[in-house]
Amino acid sequence: MVPRFDLSLYLVTDPEMTARRGVVATVAAAVAGGVTIVQLRDKLGSARALAEAGRALLALLRPLGVPLLVNDRLDVAHAIGADGAHVGQDDLPPSEARILLGPQAIVGLSITASHQLGTIDTSVDYVGLGPLFPTGTKADAAPALGETGFAALRRQITLPVVAIGGITVANTPRTLAAGADGVAVISAICAAADPQAAAQALRHAIRTVRR
Amino acid sequence: MVPRFDLSLYLVTDPEMTARRGVVATVAAAVAGGVTIVQLRDKLGSARALAEAGRALLALLRPLGVPLLVNDRLDVAHAIGADGAHVGQDDLPPSEARILLGPQAIVGLSITASHQLGTIDTSVDYVGLGPLFPTGTKADAAPALGETGFAALRRQITLPVVAIGGITVANTPRTLAAGADGVAVISAICAAADPQAAAQALRHAIRTVRR
Repeated sequence: MVPRFDLSLYLVTDPEMTARRGVVATVAAAVAGGVTIVQLRDKLGSARALAEAGRALLALLRPLGVPLLVNDRLDVAHAIGADGAHVGQDDLPPSEARILLGPQAIVGLSITASHQLGTIDTSVDYVGLGPLFPTGTKADAAPALGETGFAALRRQITLPVVAIGGITVANTPRTLAAGADGVAVISAICAAADPQAAAQALRHAIRTVRR
Repeated sequence: MVPRFDLSLYLVTDPEMTARRGVVATVAAAVAGGVTIVQLRDKLGSARALAEAGRALLALLRPLGVPLLVNDRLDVAHAIGADGAHVGQDDLPPSEARILLGPQAIVGLSITASHQLGTIDTSVDYVGLGPLFPTGTKADAAPALGETGFAALRRQITLPVVAIGGITVANTPRTLAAGADGVAVISAICAAADPQAAAQALRHAIRTVRR
């Protein structure tokens, strides 16, 4: 049984954007500003470094009740006892995450186009859908769906959906109006001069819509 | 209980060197030439691509009784049912490999310097020791140990040791004389014009010494 989780404001960490401040300090500020769930993502670092960062983040996040998911590396998620994992279409399938991490793990899957909808199986707890808007963070990102394309795909998904790709305070209302249950950001928080204020502004935009 | 395995001629695959011929065709030729154990290594590819290559290699190797180990990615090793895994000092520790892969998995650990000897714990079944000679395959390789340094380290290791780094047919006799139980090669087979003939020549050099 997967515990309840809140996708409202979903932070994906970026190793380069958080390098100066440190990933733990960045996440601490972001959570103080209202981030509800964190995904640790580093496609280039070693497994050992990822595990060390993950353990430090768990020590911060677990007392706050904010779940930590590990991107791609199911072995690292298992080793550190993370709350779950997030996999993309080039990673191991969500069924493998369920097998390795057990029934209580939160398992997320990225969907970037309609032909991938069939990869959402019973192992998946939520979907990361995007990129919604054009984004410069991921060099190999798929084409932006736009609000119409996003909304059309979202209607075909019965699970909770977090939108990702180019999301800002300004377009958060349109993102939620397009059917997202939450907004996932990388640069909007990781690259912000003040990650806590950036998270607070996003959180405020979400609350304003939901009021 | 870990099954018996033969470290005599240990092939580590390289994605670039095997790209033209294909990793499965390269390994098939190498095994026909006498390779006794195979490590699938690709630090840059996706988990899904690694798993696909691993499954294809298992279909080839399992009927031949040649074990397949996966480098670094314990989750991929688990997902494909590999015979074991090999971890370096920047990867997850061997104890995590043992937990994830179970008591029958073959677990190898890389050692490049004496200060790492303490990382050899009861989870480890064999040690990959090197680089013995200078090598151009790994851009971030540690300094070469040389035969004297290798022999001194090898004497402090009670487990079977496979030597790696710059090994050729010509220096295989000196490698075994320095205490190696087997030779591990990347370029000597993966970059050879004829991987089967290259493996046969190495195998012949090993047999000549052991006669």
